[in-house]
Amino acid sequence: MGGRAHRVSLGDAWSRRVHPDLESERRGRALDVERLTHLLDGGARNTALRREVESLFQDDPAFSLINNYFMTPNERYEAAIRKRVLLHRMAQRLGWPKDGLQHHYAFRAISGDVTFNVHDIATKAIRSLGSEEQIAKWAPLSETYRIIVTFAQTELGHGTYLQGLETEATYDAATQEFVIHSPTMTATKWWPGDLGRSATHALVMAQLVCSGARQGIHGFMVPIRSLRDHSLLPGIAAGNIGPNMDLENADNGFLRLDHVRVPRENMLNRFAQVLPDGTYIRFGIAQNNYLSMVVARVDILVNGVLPALQKACVIATRYSVIRRQSRLRPSDPETKILDYQTQQQKLFLPLAMSYAFHFQLASLREFFQNSYVNILNKDISLLPELHALTTGTKAMMSDFCTHGAELCRRACGGHGYSKLSALPSLVTQLMASCTYEGENTVLYLQLARFLVKNYQRAQQVAGPTLQKSLPQSVAYLATPHLTKCPAQRTADFLSPELYTMAWAHMATRLIEDSVRHLQTLRQSGADQHEAWDQTGIILLQAAKAHCYYLTVKSFKEALEKLDNEPAIQPALKRLCDLFALHGILTDSGNFLYDGFLSGPQVDMVRTAYLDLLLLIRKDAILLTDAFDFTDQCLNSALGCYDGNVYERLFHWAQMSPNNKSQNPAYEKYIGPLIQSRGSKL
Amino acid sequence: MGGRAHRVSLGDAWSRRVHPDLESERRGRALDVERLTHLLDGGARNTALRREVESLFQDDPAFSLINNYFMTPNERYEAAIRKRVLLHRMAQRLGWPKDGLQHHYAFRAISGDVTFNVHDIATKAIRSLGSEEQIAKWAPLSETYRIIVTFAQTELGHGTYLQGLETEATYDAATQEFVIHSPTMTATKWWPGDLGRSATHALVMAQLVCSGARQGIHGFMVPIRSLRDHSLLPGIAAGNIGPNMDLENADNGFLRLDHVRVPRENMLNRFAQVLPDGTYIRFGIAQNNYLSMVVARVDILVNGVLPALQKACVIATRYSVIRRQSRLRPSDPETKILDYQTQQQKLFLPLAMSYAFHFQLASLREFFQNSYVNILNKDISLLPELHALTTGTKAMMSDFCTHGAELCRRACGGHGYSKLSALPSLVTQLMASCTYEGENTVLYLQLARFLVKNYQRAQQVAGPTLQKSLPQSVAYLATPHLTKCPAQRTADFLSPELYTMAWAHMATRLIEDSVRHLQTLRQSGADQHEAWDQTGIILLQAAKAHCYYLTVKSFKEALEKLDNEPAIQPALKRLCDLFALHGILTDSGNFLYDGFLSGPQVDMVRTAYLDLLLLIRKDAILLTDAFDFTDQCLNSALGCYDGNVYERLFHWAQMSPNNKSQNPAYEKYIGPLIQSRGSKL
Repeated sequence: MGGRAHRVSLGDAWSRRVHPDLESERRGRALDVERLTHLLDGGARNTALRREVESLFQDDPAFSLINNYFMTPNERYEAAIRKRVLLHRMAQRLGWPKDGLQHHYAFRAISGDVTFNVHDIATKAIRSLGSEEQIAKWAPLSETYRIIVTFAQTELGHGTYLQGLETEATYDAATQEFVIHSPTMTATKWWPGDLGRSATHALVMAQLVCSGARQGIHGFMVPIRSLRDHSLLPGIAAGNIGPNMDLENADNGFLRLDHVRVPRENMLNRFAQVLPDGTYIRFGIAQNNYLSMVVARVDILVNGVLPALQKACVIATRYSVIRRQSRLRPSDPETKILDYQTQQQKLFLPLAMSYAFHFQLASLREFFQNSYVNILNKDISLLPELHALTTGTKAMMSDFCTHGAELCRRACGGHGYSKLSALPSLVTQLMASCTYEGENTVLYLQLARFLVKNYQRAQQVAGPTLQKSLPQSVAYLATPHLTKCPAQRTADFLSPELYTMAWAHMATRLIEDSVRHLQTLRQSGADQHEAWDQTGIILLQAAKAHCYYLTVKSFKEALEKLDNEPAIQPALKRLCDLFALHGILTDSGNFLYDGFLSGPQVDMVRTAYLDLLLLIRKDAILLTDAFDFTDQCLNSALGCYDGNVYERLFHWAQMSPNNKSQNPAYEKYIGPLIQSRGSKL
Repeated sequence: MGGRAHRVSLGDAWSRRVHPDLESERRGRALDVERLTHLLDGGARNTALRREVESLFQDDPAFSLINNYFMTPNERYEAAIRKRVLLHRMAQRLGWPKDGLQHHYAFRAISGDVTFNVHDIATKAIRSLGSEEQIAKWAPLSETYRIIVTFAQTELGHGTYLQGLETEATYDAATQEFVIHSPTMTATKWWPGDLGRSATHALVMAQLVCSGARQGIHGFMVPIRSLRDHSLLPGIAAGNIGPNMDLENADNGFLRLDHVRVPRENMLNRFAQVLPDGTYIRFGIAQNNYLSMVVARVDILVNGVLPALQKACVIATRYSVIRRQSRLRPSDPETKILDYQTQQQKLFLPLAMSYAFHFQLASLREFFQNSYVNILNKDISLLPELHALTTGTKAMMSDFCTHGAELCRRACGGHGYSKLSALPSLVTQLMASCTYEGENTVLYLQLARFLVKNYQRAQQVAGPTLQKSLPQSVAYLATPHLTKCPAQRTADFLSPELYTMAWAHMATRLIEDSVRHLQTLRQSGADQHEAWDQTGIILLQAAKAHCYYLTVKSFKEALEKLDNEPAIQPALKRLCDLFALHGILTDSGNFLYDGFLSGPQVDMVRTAYLDLLLLIRKDAILLTDAFDFTDQCLNSALGCYDGNVYERLFHWAQMSPNNKSQNPAYEKYIGPLIQSRGSKL
């Protein structure tokens, strides 16, 4: 199945003819789009499977997304449930394997616009926190939707700081039950998805109290709605938390528990257990209970965060070769806005991110797959690094993707404000990702703690032994760096070795700076916690520089594997260069501060950066085509494959119910006003 | 009427008792909130008048905003019309003078949540573009809502670049009429507010064609809907453009004109006229037709952009002394999040902007009032500077306020994603302001042209004569600057003289840099337009630095007038310091680049900045109280004066209709799914 036929999928009248301004962008370039798509998919076979799955939805009006734009939040919720059910039936009918890529591709094809996404997270949490017996009991029920499970962690008064959760699970040895209770209003579970009106069960994260002692946060399976008639069970108050910025399919809810009893077996006990007499036994470290969040973070990056940025790039870039505005020369026709340097600046950073993060996620997933199995088997040696990697990657990617998508949205001018462009929703969905599954500032500071600790280890001993003993992602802290950048010409800055080294230098220096600041504060009498807080801003900066370094490094390593791919490597290398140099320019103060870069070297970076924009311009459309999103899942009047922007925008607007019905405000207010009769108020 | 009684206006049960964590923030500080409020209002008399007007709405359920959260877009539109009509009746009943501050205060009291805001812009445009006769004819009709007028400028295919507008107004001497026509689909007027379902007339901006020649953009009064029954007039197609990111009260619409004829008198002719025989006469320069945009820009900054940022500050700051999270020390209770350095970093920049922009707008309005009357009287000597000032201020303020409000929103964690916090809507409204009334990148580049031109003038001659002859806002380009910052200690950076000079230095250097880059490109063979485009990114940077300089300068000058105000001056000075130093730190690369600052000086700036955060922390609540917003107009569960955050969030969520009705998705989908019956699909 070829690329083009696959991508064009709205089945409307315009799709038949590609706009000449887009057509010309796709001609005569060395970049092999199809090959790049295979690379992104992890092989041609995956691409074929993905397209096969996507084609199942192509002409099915049940999965059309256009109507979303004209629905109420309630209608959105109902449609999202309906689609989830249809999807489930489809998977059963076609016999998709439980962990098959088909599910992932189906999710992509319908833009994740279904309910029960938190149910899926909860199901995975059962698998990572439950014993084999518990998994055998709950997972099949959950995976076949015989129960709907929400993951109930955050509370009205408590978010990322889990130790502060107030919900209690007190063990009653007399009945061998846990009493799950919300002792205050602020203990009300708040935000869990699928909770408001759907879930039958909650995986409640609560403070375990047994034998009179608090044992920290553990997970408990709690039935909340009747499986017979869906009514709330005794002791349960639950409902919807009202409207949010987006995510109308999420069904975010609240939950108050009034001394609700569940049997002893309902505590998920892979890592800790309460014996019948109330004795508490822990296997491994307390942090294991956070494992479900590590899993969830990787999940949302792969399925939610990165694709949203990529879509925003596709839409804004395509629109920017159709939209013409102003003239470069008075005698010319109006210019494609993508030909303006300032537009290239806006769009090519998000484009570079889209690829940079793809490769970074690929390497994160590899590390995850290796370490996760070990952790489940209670070998926790890699847990600190896994935690640091997912924490930093989640914070950076959600921050950057949100920023990037908003750049794309704004680069479309007024039309980027129309929901019909799809950009507003991509941005507001991404905004959520900066907060959910851990607030980013808190996450960066957690990473900073890991960095400071390893920096101090690296200082204590030195040499190759040490470097080996440091976690791989911070091994650079033990490597000697140049104190001055050796680049002498603009072209020198196009060396991945050079700029990766520059980022390692900068990250190391900022971690050093943090450690020095901490020490100065301690010496002047501050206690450890005060010193940590008063170094917060510097620590944040260090953690961000480390993340930037990791991204550049993983992009560089991915490029090295493509040395035999002349039809795709050069175009990707330019994106890698752009990403690295953009960061150096934006942060030039930190590179100039200690003389690592000189003023003339910053000028070279700028020259290299400006030249890159012109080169990337030529491949821009192809680089976005390669993501191979269908028109259906883009759901954007501005971003379709054929470029018939204005026709589609005009046509979609006509679908607004407002254009089909009488305006009720006329009789009541406008008429009386303009005729100066008394309004019917 | 005292401050507190005035502010608390939701009339709910919690308002009676202020949360102790907020109460304590308001005690024992030297800052005189009431005096500061008077300063912001422009005098105690204005404060009293404002509160009197606001009290009119206080207990009136017709103006309650809480229900907005649960309305459909259609219901929002209808409610906004209803409120506009009620407001109009109120103004008539109470005899408010036409240009009285009462209107401004009423608009503030109800958060601008009414229709006909573009009607107001169009009415002002009639006054600035129309002759005295035309004003006498149209303004009274429009000001009493006997007609509803939209300002129809942007088109489906054309935005900020007005010369590209396609709509034509061709003069027909035979009938002495203009034929107004949309020749293509992309010529369809798109976006104008109040057009979708309300307007009876459109002030159409169109290409004038007379005596066979194109004469540029002019304004035409065009009836579009029947005053009898509101039906579309012959030749008119109009309607709603579909859902947008926010602004559901705006009624954005489209308009296609098919050879619609209007009499010769309907061309607004203060600055240009077509005689009966088709002779075209211009009074003054063509740019006069853009005057209506200058007026509109000042308007949206004062009434929309700045208050939205200020509200976001109030909400996030109040929430941040109620919300507690994690512990600084293990033995402490959880910490108010405002006590964390990283939270202070997030919130105090927007707070500093809130004041900085207040003073900048005050000085802009003063300049505007002086120059506008002259321009109407066809003395256009100040028009270029007025244009440059409004252009730059609009671009910078909308950019910064959007960024600042989003910082505030994100600083509230998950709850900042709930619409009930009011923050999502403040952010999405501000996002619109970056595009409407001129896309910001285009505006910055227009300002850059003004800067380059004046820089070149400054180079041609020198000395005090020249400095006088330069427009006041760029006089600094002719002043000699130090090439190295003289600061020797941290405290030196708290001198407004010093940091204003630093910003002048930096702006000058970047303009110089742009000019040099332009010259280099010209010398290497690029033509003028290509060179301009290829310098775009550098020009943008220069324009932004100039705007930053102007803001710092106007804040500094405002502080100088407060030397006899010990109860408010020190707190404001700290915000000015923070604003200036934050910019220097963020942009330290540009200060280090040419050696103006050294590394150790950047350290001093950082130390000064970190110290300021701790000082501002103490006054933070009072500084936001001083904006004196009523709870009603904040409409935020997180931001009320009394700080009863959780109770209100919980209570408001219960008002969701979803919590009152049966879930229709249960019978249809969830029930059959969990009971594994066939769903009713």
